[in-house]
Amino acid sequence: MHALLLVAHGSRRQASNQEVEALTQRIAASGGHRFGLYATAFLELASPTIEEGLRHCLTNGAKKITLVPYFLAAGTHVVNDIPAIIEKMAEELAGVEVEVEPHVGQSPLMEELILSLAASGRARLGDP
Amino acid sequence: MHALLLVAHGSRRQASNQEVEALTQRIAASGGHRFGLYATAFLELASPTIEEGLRHCLTNGAKKITLVPYFLAAGTHVVNDIPAIIEKMAEELAGVEVEVEPHVGQSPLMEELILSLAASGRARLGDP
Repeated sequence: MHALLLVAHGSRRQASNQEVEALTQRIAASGGHRFGLYATAFLELASPTIEEGLRHCLTNGAKKITLVPYFLAAGTHVVNDIPAIIEKMAEELAGVEVEVEPHVGQSPLMEELILSLAASGRARLGDP
Repeated sequence: MHALLLVAHGSRRQASNQEVEALTQRIAASGGHRFGLYATAFLELASPTIEEGLRHCLTNGAKKITLVPYFLAAGTHVVNDIPAIIEKMAEELAGVEVEVEPHVGQSPLMEELILSLAASGRARLGDP
């Protein structure tokens, strides 16, 4: 089974974490059978943690886990923290392929996403 | 003239700010004549600031400015800080339409972007 794990920073604001959970649900709806499991995890300030997220994938039978860092910039969280957590779990993850994708800010679709937002013209300051 | 202003949080890491500048350049290349000017601004820790970014648009003749918050979550920066800065500049911005779009985390294209990253399979942990 191939699992997709979306990893966000995590926030003290519960609404912000819920926004990420809701995104994972929308990804699952769009992705359908492409992955056997869609899960969310947080680097800090919220749960499930990355360790818990990876274990959730394992206990559900994942043999391959694709981790997508939901970060806009390649800061130390993306470059160091996430790989270090996976490294620390090497024994538990033996026999499982863990793939870490580029963070979302690196996606070549980001230009299109922003141009599309800019064209939507939803909120006009000064509107009554 | 219609300007697009991409507003990011800003970082102490210069590479992170440069990543945003590079994104604005790619948006400009994709967007072409859809906007007369493509600019970047930062909420804090980096320059140009949002005030400077808006003034840059004004001095280049913008009559409409579309501001896209390059943020994943609707935190206080998006909800309070950005509108407050625009509000404070109301006199300078008189006669100019300023449109604040939803932050990038709210885009309906985000699901597709993440599924596409997850399919790219670029970085495999354990690769030689």
